[in-house]
Amino acid sequence: MKKLGRQTWQFDTEPRVLSTGTVAGKVESEGPLGQWFDVRLVQDGMQDASWERDEQNLMRQAVETALAKAKLSPNDVDVALGGDLNAQLTGFYFGLRDFNFPELGLYSACSTMTQSMALAGLLVDVGAAHTVLAGTSSHNSTAERQFRFPTEYGAQKPETAQRTVTGAGMAVVGAGAGNVVIREATIGEVVDFGIKNPWEYGAAMAPAAFRTIMTHLDATGRKIDDFDCIATGDLGRIGHAILRDLFAQQGEDPGNILTDCGMLIYAPEQPEVFSGGSGAACSSLVTFGYLLEKLRIGTWSRILVAATGALLSTFTSQQKDSIPAISHAVVFERRGG
Amino acid sequence: MKKLGRQTWQFDTEPRVLSTGTVAGKVESEGPLGQWFDVRLVQDGMQDASWERDEQNLMRQAVETALAKAKLSPNDVDVALGGDLNAQLTGFYFGLRDFNFPELGLYSACSTMTQSMALAGLLVDVGAAHTVLAGTSSHNSTAERQFRFPTEYGAQKPETAQRTVTGAGMAVVGAGAGNVVIREATIGEVVDFGIKNPWEYGAAMAPAAFRTIMTHLDATGRKIDDFDCIATGDLGRIGHAILRDLFAQQGEDPGNILTDCGMLIYAPEQPEVFSGGSGAACSSLVTFGYLLEKLRIGTWSRILVAATGALLSTFTSQQKDSIPAISHAVVFERRGG
Repeated sequence: MKKLGRQTWQFDTEPRVLSTGTVAGKVESEGPLGQWFDVRLVQDGMQDASWERDEQNLMRQAVETALAKAKLSPNDVDVALGGDLNAQLTGFYFGLRDFNFPELGLYSACSTMTQSMALAGLLVDVGAAHTVLAGTSSHNSTAERQFRFPTEYGAQKPETAQRTVTGAGMAVVGAGAGNVVIREATIGEVVDFGIKNPWEYGAAMAPAAFRTIMTHLDATGRKIDDFDCIATGDLGRIGHAILRDLFAQQGEDPGNILTDCGMLIYAPEQPEVFSGGSGAACSSLVTFGYLLEKLRIGTWSRILVAATGALLSTFTSQQKDSIPAISHAVVFERRGG
Repeated sequence: MKKLGRQTWQFDTEPRVLSTGTVAGKVESEGPLGQWFDVRLVQDGMQDASWERDEQNLMRQAVETALAKAKLSPNDVDVALGGDLNAQLTGFYFGLRDFNFPELGLYSACSTMTQSMALAGLLVDVGAAHTVLAGTSSHNSTAERQFRFPTEYGAQKPETAQRTVTGAGMAVVGAGAGNVVIREATIGEVVDFGIKNPWEYGAAMAPAAFRTIMTHLDATGRKIDDFDCIATGDLGRIGHAILRDLFAQQGEDPGNILTDCGMLIYAPEQPEVFSGGSGAACSSLVTFGYLLEKLRIGTWSRILVAATGALLSTFTSQQKDSIPAISHAVVFERRGG
């Protein structure tokens, strides 16, 4: 690997994305990207003993799907990396506990997907692991209870709110076959613009995405139009508009290259999706199910995914603290074959 | 770096521990290791607006201490790694938000210290970072509220309980001067023996520590008496006795080589320390403040620290689920000079 600047890693051996497994909830399966997901839930509502168990099951199913598609068994995995939004990462740790993987739990809220893929790329690139599983889960009802109100309360939401995605996405990264490579990663820093309203994640996270994307472009010497697609994690429509303003202030117009996983996953006319999707699985479902497929089938040749995380907790909201945010970026490229 | 077996990393360039910063609470400062800590709090009780703010302050102070001792400024740090027990890692992310470090939040409960040091060693060894900050915090009152009952309830505890350590420990890892190196790391897997009582972390975690230590010895070909000290994270007296039984079942007697940070940090006669210390800062305070100093001054030449994490959350306890556990191990060695 090569270190570019303070916080960008370029992977010389070009670790491959060997397979992905995506499990999407009912609303996500009914959305514009529904056809791209491996497993589409047809039922809404609790399936197991609790919402938390449901999320653990999503995580497990995404692992099983990714391993099956790569024709690997759990023992072939040297380490599993990932996380979720539940306190103490119980989606990840409880969801995977029967596989006996060596595990590294990671947390940067909805930026955990790119944090996982950055480290997966590094571990494979330097030979610390031959095969890595990496990804995230989220669940609408575990997140509502965790960060806002239990869904049973029927609390009303403003239009700046976002809908937490129900689903899980896992990727197998290794040195085998496959034409999608992890080329670079940029580790983000915490950015706090003092926003305190937990219905305005998009506004809190847009500056973090902007800073990480600019840091990445600086470190690599690339320009926006060197990419076929730059996708943020889950800014939603409002955060996305703010990010465009931040680019405009620098004289940049990313045009159609810039999109957002939270805007792609739902159609605006779907009920109760508000400003778009959010949640740790928003960027993993959209990236693993859709964006990487566009590379795989040859529509695109290079994309940047900058997942974005709002670093609040129930306690920090109750204690009236602001919402720091972070964004980690990963560049995926298509290779011939 | 060299990969040994499935999950052990050996660091060829031998990353150095350049400095450490330890901030200990009042009870910890009054304990048998009190003299070894850099900052010793003389007051108990809330210092800032909340227990959570207090913990963030501990984390910040540990960073400032570690940087000052290494004569570095925040801009010299390429990435900060760490975590804490608070939901969504607010001790780490809020505690460090003013430093502008690129950051990777990690979580494996009280095993987060060795998870952080394993990744710190890797990042420096492979050139992904020149200088890394790594460590953890915990706070007795944030943990009581998070995992059990707010301290104001005055809930009584059984003797199997452990006292969550108040404190923070951070280490600067890099390629500069210093005679303590990170030689190897072994990434643990989740072990679940079905224990459901949240007052018995030690019993839940002992099998995870045992498995990781045995995995490490297998991968490296070392024996127990190749180490001057093998310290688990926070099993406490009861978990420690169980770990000795597990060794005995394999015909092994680690004798005085085996110890536990949770046993070292408090004297049994201190009030309300029960079976010993726990918390993400237990192993970071004891390791950074005491164990690494024994290497530095030449008393020892090789130690293994296997911090141990109980992977429960408030919800998983309330939902009557068991307590999976994990342990990551790091080997530190003394080099001449």
